[in-house]
Amino acid sequence: LYSAGVIEFVVRYRAGARTSRIRIDAGGLGRLGAFARRLSGAGRVVLVSDRRVAALHGAPALRSLERSGFSAGLVALPSGERTKRAAALARLWDRFAAARLDRRDLVVALGGGVIGDLAGFAAATYLRGVDWLVVPTTLLAQVDSGVGGKTGIDLAAGKNLVGAFHQPRGVLVDPGLLRTLPPRQRRAGLAEVVKTGMAADAALFAWIERRADALAAGEVGTLAGAVARTLRAKARVVARDEREAEGGGRSALNYGHTLGHALEAAHGYRGLLHGEAVAIGMRVAGALSQRVAGLAPESRAAQDAVLDRLGLPERMPPTPLARLLAAMRHDKKRAAAGVRWVLTPRVGHASVPRLISGRLVRAALLEAGALA
Amino acid sequence: LYSAGVIEFVVRYRAGARTSRIRIDAGGLGRLGAFARRLSGAGRVVLVSDRRVAALHGAPALRSLERSGFSAGLVALPSGERTKRAAALARLWDRFAAARLDRRDLVVALGGGVIGDLAGFAAATYLRGVDWLVVPTTLLAQVDSGVGGKTGIDLAAGKNLVGAFHQPRGVLVDPGLLRTLPPRQRRAGLAEVVKTGMAADAALFAWIERRADALAAGEVGTLAGAVARTLRAKARVVARDEREAEGGGRSALNYGHTLGHALEAAHGYRGLLHGEAVAIGMRVAGALSQRVAGLAPESRAAQDAVLDRLGLPERMPPTPLARLLAAMRHDKKRAAAGVRWVLTPRVGHASVPRLISGRLVRAALLEAGALA
Repeated sequence: LYSAGVIEFVVRYRAGARTSRIRIDAGGLGRLGAFARRLSGAGRVVLVSDRRVAALHGAPALRSLERSGFSAGLVALPSGERTKRAAALARLWDRFAAARLDRRDLVVALGGGVIGDLAGFAAATYLRGVDWLVVPTTLLAQVDSGVGGKTGIDLAAGKNLVGAFHQPRGVLVDPGLLRTLPPRQRRAGLAEVVKTGMAADAALFAWIERRADALAAGEVGTLAGAVARTLRAKARVVARDEREAEGGGRSALNYGHTLGHALEAAHGYRGLLHGEAVAIGMRVAGALSQRVAGLAPESRAAQDAVLDRLGLPERMPPTPLARLLAAMRHDKKRAAAGVRWVLTPRVGHASVPRLISGRLVRAALLEAGALA
Repeated sequence: LYSAGVIEFVVRYRAGARTSRIRIDAGGLGRLGAFARRLSGAGRVVLVSDRRVAALHGAPALRSLERSGFSAGLVALPSGERTKRAAALARLWDRFAAARLDRRDLVVALGGGVIGDLAGFAAATYLRGVDWLVVPTTLLAQVDSGVGGKTGIDLAAGKNLVGAFHQPRGVLVDPGLLRTLPPRQRRAGLAEVVKTGMAADAALFAWIERRADALAAGEVGTLAGAVARTLRAKARVVARDEREAEGGGRSALNYGHTLGHALEAAHGYRGLLHGEAVAIGMRVAGALSQRVAGLAPESRAAQDAVLDRLGLPERMPPTPLARLLAAMRHDKKRAAAGVRWVLTPRVGHASVPRLISGRLVRAALLEAGALA
């Protein structure tokens, strides 16, 4: 069904008239200009990328934009997480001004999550908001950062502490770009696919179970299907709850992330990839869900079996318990009374975050590999 | 009516449930904490100011916040326009993180337009938006930057090129703070009062005509009345058109600003104060309004007479015409086809921006003092 041809759908957000068009199109990078032209009357485009991605895909992207009549320029930032900081943001704003972008012009982000978050935030704030498109080039970015409109940068004190909601006008997903993605990056991206199934779409979870081996092997058609189904599921959730209202449905998508974020922070964002941390977070959230939310033992086992087949880690690397708990308390989503977890009473139906007793959390973390 | 006691009203914005509470209260700085407590359940407050204002008013503001149970800290930035830049913004974000502000906490801006715009933008983007209050300390800021929710910073390439809409929860206007304001700053602030009357409130304009001498002399009770009436008029316009939709009513408030902004830019933001540039801009917009929009000659003369009585400049300082025209074309609100002007066919009823022929604009500028 989803493995051949082009898929397009539109996400409508409740607040205001804003829509995002999602296009999944193998080889679609060469049709970027036509896609952008359907969504924008811009004269000028600034294409934002990092040096590694720009070397691989910058030239065809620029050519396609120019063929569709845009006056396009490329900004290639240093590759890596450090680019998602205030200094690069200020450089980007200056480049937009130098290119004389006006309110009807367009920013296009070509890269992974760092580039999407940074370029989207620069677009959200330049002239108080210009339109943007995103062309995610990693599996994680294809399933995670395209839909939802969260943009932002890191501070020295923590990740994603600064940002804005700014829905891209369009998301162009080209699964062909995944051919050159390292296998470990692919596996980490698949963790977000599993998470979306567990949190919000039981049919997606069943679909993953049937195709886990093809996904693990990186079969591009199957990956494209996984991306399409994940984006649709997320779009349903996000369209209902654009701003992540307290207790709103969007928080379901944080399943696995309470511990995942804390693990990444406790390791200084080195060593573990985001998806690997989320996989460990899901295993612990699954254990807690079975314990206090009524998740059937066989559902928890099914989740862990899929994570195993996708080659995702089972236990956390050695981590002092105290550091993990401190990192959880500092997460920006913390409530005053303690740490809240998104749990799932059954597959596809994660609940609003709930407070879990310190005793239970400690026991679950020790079981998952934390050091007492 | 307005010259004694405390005035409060609430502005409701169409988009979403957001409201701003405006309080005009002579001596109200000492009641800042109680005002903030009515609007916020925050535990922590970061008070943002500049060094000059902090030296005058920082201690009583902090004391008042602490008496109302907030844990409050002060950030005092260098005084002057250069503070409204990306570097100070990044420092502010870091200070918010160091203070461990969370989503329910509060930013309070205490200062003129630079501090309000900068602190408001930092609040708009920290954790994707925390609440803020503003305590404007200049007449211009009291009538101009409190209501409307425009926040932002300058780039090297131009003013206000980066920003966000983020309505403050509250605006505390203490006219007592104007006692120490230099007379030239006061006169420049009054230009915005006249502009609001001409653009959106004929009754306000008539009120100014009757009290121009008391306003020029800096009589605090009369200034308080002018602030209250100006804020109410602006609130009516802004509540109808929060986002400055193309052709929306809010653009009326740009009366006098097409030339005003260009004049400031052409002089490198030195020499002329913003209100002085706007006063010259209004005189030229008035001339064009009489010429092409049907403004009665006696209404144009009444505007110019009030500006004279308030001691506002009549002609622009010597400015090359070519530089002025270039600055107008680079204003971020420009349309593709040329320069649009907000004109007013009658007092209190400025129209949506309209394209004026280059010939007419040139003639009006030369008459106002531009160098051929």
